[in-house]
Amino acid sequence: MPERVGNQTLNLLSRPAVTGYAAVVGKKEGEGPLANQFDKINEDTTLGELSWEKAESALQKEALTIALEKAGCTAGQIQYVFAGDLLNQCIGSSFGLRDFGIPFIGLFGACSTMALSLALSSILVDSGAATLSAAVTSSHFCSAERQFRYPLEYGGQRTPTAQWTVTGAGAAIIAAQGGGPFVQAVTLGKIVDLGIKDANNMGAAMAPAAADTIQTFLEDTGTRPTDYDLILTGDLGMVGSSLLKELLARENIDISPVHNDCGLLIFDLEEQDVHAGGSGCGCAASVLCSHIFNRMRSGNLKNILFCATGALMSTVSSQQGETVPSVAHLVQIMNQ
Amino acid sequence: MPERVGNQTLNLLSRPAVTGYAAVVGKKEGEGPLANQFDKINEDTTLGELSWEKAESALQKEALTIALEKAGCTAGQIQYVFAGDLLNQCIGSSFGLRDFGIPFIGLFGACSTMALSLALSSILVDSGAATLSAAVTSSHFCSAERQFRYPLEYGGQRTPTAQWTVTGAGAAIIAAQGGGPFVQAVTLGKIVDLGIKDANNMGAAMAPAAADTIQTFLEDTGTRPTDYDLILTGDLGMVGSSLLKELLARENIDISPVHNDCGLLIFDLEEQDVHAGGSGCGCAASVLCSHIFNRMRSGNLKNILFCATGALMSTVSSQQGETVPSVAHLVQIMNQ
Repeated sequence: MPERVGNQTLNLLSRPAVTGYAAVVGKKEGEGPLANQFDKINEDTTLGELSWEKAESALQKEALTIALEKAGCTAGQIQYVFAGDLLNQCIGSSFGLRDFGIPFIGLFGACSTMALSLALSSILVDSGAATLSAAVTSSHFCSAERQFRYPLEYGGQRTPTAQWTVTGAGAAIIAAQGGGPFVQAVTLGKIVDLGIKDANNMGAAMAPAAADTIQTFLEDTGTRPTDYDLILTGDLGMVGSSLLKELLARENIDISPVHNDCGLLIFDLEEQDVHAGGSGCGCAASVLCSHIFNRMRSGNLKNILFCATGALMSTVSSQQGETVPSVAHLVQIMNQ
Repeated sequence: MPERVGNQTLNLLSRPAVTGYAAVVGKKEGEGPLANQFDKINEDTTLGELSWEKAESALQKEALTIALEKAGCTAGQIQYVFAGDLLNQCIGSSFGLRDFGIPFIGLFGACSTMALSLALSSILVDSGAATLSAAVTSSHFCSAERQFRYPLEYGGQRTPTAQWTVTGAGAAIIAAQGGGPFVQAVTLGKIVDLGIKDANNMGAAMAPAAADTIQTFLEDTGTRPTDYDLILTGDLGMVGSSLLKELLARENIDISPVHNDCGLLIFDLEEQDVHAGGSGCGCAASVLCSHIFNRMRSGNLKNILFCATGALMSTVSSQQGETVPSVAHLVQIMNQ
């Protein structure tokens, strides 16, 4: 049963297990430093589909299918699937998951969706509302680029603060019983908006939300950054990661010895021309559901905080001169 | 604690209470049959804002503010707000709720969002994860029309099957303690897609999802339609409501003596020129959070099923020739 700790944190007393997980990515991600961690690399990023949006749906389908296999269960046994993505009306998820026949809870958390879907799945399993739940999300460079920025053919120049949307999907199966890693606690975040308006600098917009959620979790649990092997942010990239450390340092919290960011891990920033790093729902999802969970299973990581951040804007809100409200959700995961 | 009943239903043993609720609408809704039920009617549907999208956010803000007042609590006491809307990246919710400082769970369920947010809030309260949670959603005729269909100035002709997006928001406060009505059970639905492609006939696309969820709930609980005072669908309108009754009749389930639909209740279909009825997240939300909860508090309704339906499509999926996958979520509510 979930137990409230401090202001915003839930301790999950039954410690739900991540019994299966999978990450499926595109060509560029398959050329990066985590290449040998992914379950599948699609050299053809259309996945044989007729549009980039359909390709993104196919990524979710592949990721969930492999995660189910690895967890040793069927879609029919899963009681809920929590999923969302960046596309208008989250069509990556609804079209990607419609054939599984699993009760569907659509989420919108932008790039925080992997943490949000994992958190809600874990709460439902911990409370007895489910014995098996799935968390899925995705992004695709081409569907995101043409929806949020320019037509792909235009080849617009990118600012140095811009991040590169990951083509990838991650899926995790959360169960009441079975091998881990295990979800120990969750902190669902508040919307934080410090007035950043630059839609090409998402890291800066999202860093204050990450700082707020991480600080809240540490206060709620009475712990310090060095109590964890890793504090992994979703996809703040280079600019946002520096800002996060600066914001927390002002509160006398030093996460630098244990901090890393999915947007910095997935690409080689020097070689792969991705500017400030990777981004997109699929960034945090595919890094967590491969490299990170693999390291937890091997005992290389024992106790981590996974804090994924989302920028809750649209092209319309930016065109209307609005700022970028952000949110960050945190999940504490342990290897035993 | 939630208890699983049958395949897909959760019985909420603590029966979370709806301690406050509010509905805020626009001018046209204020000219309809439920006029005297709403908490506020905005004769100026811009709400004094500079864009329709900002006006929609303002609707959510007003609805939550009034619901909090009526529940006798402050935003600081609410532990989660579950919210979503129809706008790209759900900006109605993120901008409408950013100033409340409540941990924010963004949902995408299209017009099913009121049932989804109410269901998840109730599950969290029932499980002990929260003592106070809020459920909020909205739609605005003008923001929806220009996003999904045509510029408002164009004045395009509407088909007879088309529905009129409600300008309105609804909010409910769900609590572990206090006066009701009370949430007894929830059934979260699967995605159902019978191949309807007509984006001007959402009722037909969504009816199979409603039929699936209602049938599942009745089977899971071993009850019959006439065990309930009302089976209220979200916004199937005229066309979808007929189809729903037809689909269920094939399974020997006759809901016609107790069925009604929020899209048929909110407007006078003869007088108000809304074709097949009302629609939009704000339709089910503003009808439930006024007229229906009022009738439950007065003892006029004792035991109802609220089943809101969502069409999980975007303009992009329709332009790419896709069908309209749909979902329906159900909440059983009792007056004591």
